[in-house]
Amino acid sequence: MTEDATVASVLDTLCFDANGLVPAIAQQHDTGEVLMMAWMNREAVAETLTTGRVCYWSRSRGRLWRKGETSGQTQYLKEFRLDCDGDTILLLVEQEGVACHTGRRACFYRAVRDGVLVEIAAPLIDPEKLYG
Amino acid sequence: MTEDATVASVLDTLCFDANGLVPAIAQQHDTGEVLMMAWMNREAVAETLTTGRVCYWSRSRGRLWRKGETSGQTQYLKEFRLDCDGDTILLLVEQEGVACHTGRRACFYRAVRDGVLVEIAAPLIDPEKLYG
Repeated sequence: MTEDATVASVLDTLCFDANGLVPAIAQQHDTGEVLMMAWMNREAVAETLTTGRVCYWSRSRGRLWRKGETSGQTQYLKEFRLDCDGDTILLLVEQEGVACHTGRRACFYRAVRDGVLVEIAAPLIDPEKLYG
Repeated sequence: MTEDATVASVLDTLCFDANGLVPAIAQQHDTGEVLMMAWMNREAVAETLTTGRVCYWSRSRGRLWRKGETSGQTQYLKEFRLDCDGDTILLLVEQEGVACHTGRRACFYRAVRDGVLVEIAAPLIDPEKLYG
């Protein structure tokens, strides 16, 4: 298939919500760690599949968000998967550095343990260095 | 903390969307496989934390969905995690049988390989046996 045909086939299969978005889970391809969840619109899906660098749609900024464009913490696509209903994407990625804007490797660093919500991971990079 | 205090603390930290929902990713706790993504409202979060059995909010049926109530494929909660913004939940679970209504272990069984969307996992159970 041509690249355009691949993108068209994936976009045809996906079910975007009323805002034209679909949630995308990023998982580190070799360790299995779930790094983050963000959103994609049709353009973000097409760009990610075409360039091999993960691009989301930033709901807060209202524009495409090429992961790492500011922080340098790029996500490279290893595999693009869809769920049974076509309404969620699973991205297997190679994450450079850290995925979380707090400087932690992954966004899911808070857990309920012994009935208390605690932090289970510390920042690896000072956020000031990522965005300062 | 009492169980009620735990639930209150988690509910205070979560940011529910305009529909009162938050996405929840279920990951098999020992293999790291991402099984599915579904939605929770406040009641589903509270029930999951209290009972240790994963309960979602079914958007299509408009009611609580105690995973496995029809199919017998129960999800037991191993750890409850929140992301940095409090708008996504990661559930580490022990999945009995299969997570997907198609009879596959996980919902993410379609992948783009060599430019083509292909199925990468087969059903382990006939869906007729799950819901028939």
